[in-house]
Amino acid sequence: MAMHGIVLFGHGARDVRWREPFERLAVKLREASAGARPVALAFLELMEPDLPTALGELVAQGCDVVTVVPVFFGQGGHVRKDLPLVIEQCQALHPSVRIKCAVAVGEDEAVLDAVAQYCLRQV
Amino acid sequence: MAMHGIVLFGHGARDVRWREPFERLAVKLREASAGARPVALAFLELMEPDLPTALGELVAQGCDVVTVVPVFFGQGGHVRKDLPLVIEQCQALHPSVRIKCAVAVGEDEAVLDAVAQYCLRQV
Repeated sequence: MAMHGIVLFGHGARDVRWREPFERLAVKLREASAGARPVALAFLELMEPDLPTALGELVAQGCDVVTVVPVFFGQGGHVRKDLPLVIEQCQALHPSVRIKCAVAVGEDEAVLDAVAQYCLRQV
Repeated sequence: MAMHGIVLFGHGARDVRWREPFERLAVKLREASAGARPVALAFLELMEPDLPTALGELVAQGCDVVTVVPVFFGQGGHVRKDLPLVIEQCQALHPSVRIKCAVAVGEDEAVLDAVAQYCLRQV
């Protein structure tokens, strides 16, 4: 059976506190799968690890399928141009691993609904 | 009675398609308040309008209270350092308007739950 890992891929920031929601998200995903589905964080810049490092760790844990989820609001240049190049690099490093890439989380209707509800609770 | 507006404050990007979820979010908020609560988008950089322009338009529409919601995942330098400076500038321009600032949407538990559910639907 395929072992399927998830990489939460974010932009990265200079302030380490920016990372907190990403860590909380990883904990939620690990809890939801009772630890059966490896979850790693990866960042485009300014924070470690980068995607090749994070993906390499999931492969070392036995993953043969990895889904990269861009934790971005919109599909801009980072998701449309930078990320495919890094995924291509990862695919060359791990030719036997199936690497899939999701649409940015902020494009999801239910995510936007939750953001809208949050906004309405602020006024 | 106070008229309360909302500014959805995002980073901005070079690719105009990045903006789409922000436009959808604004539509959701306008629908939720049946048009009674003005909603504007504003961006830190790379996209128009900036926050002073957006806030000025809400004030021109009669808002005397405005809540700025940072549509960011984490509370990094943009939210902790850049945004307060721009809000200070807006406050000086509109001293009679009460300008409030929310915590970044990605810090909200329900938003993170929705993101986690989205991630789980990708695997």
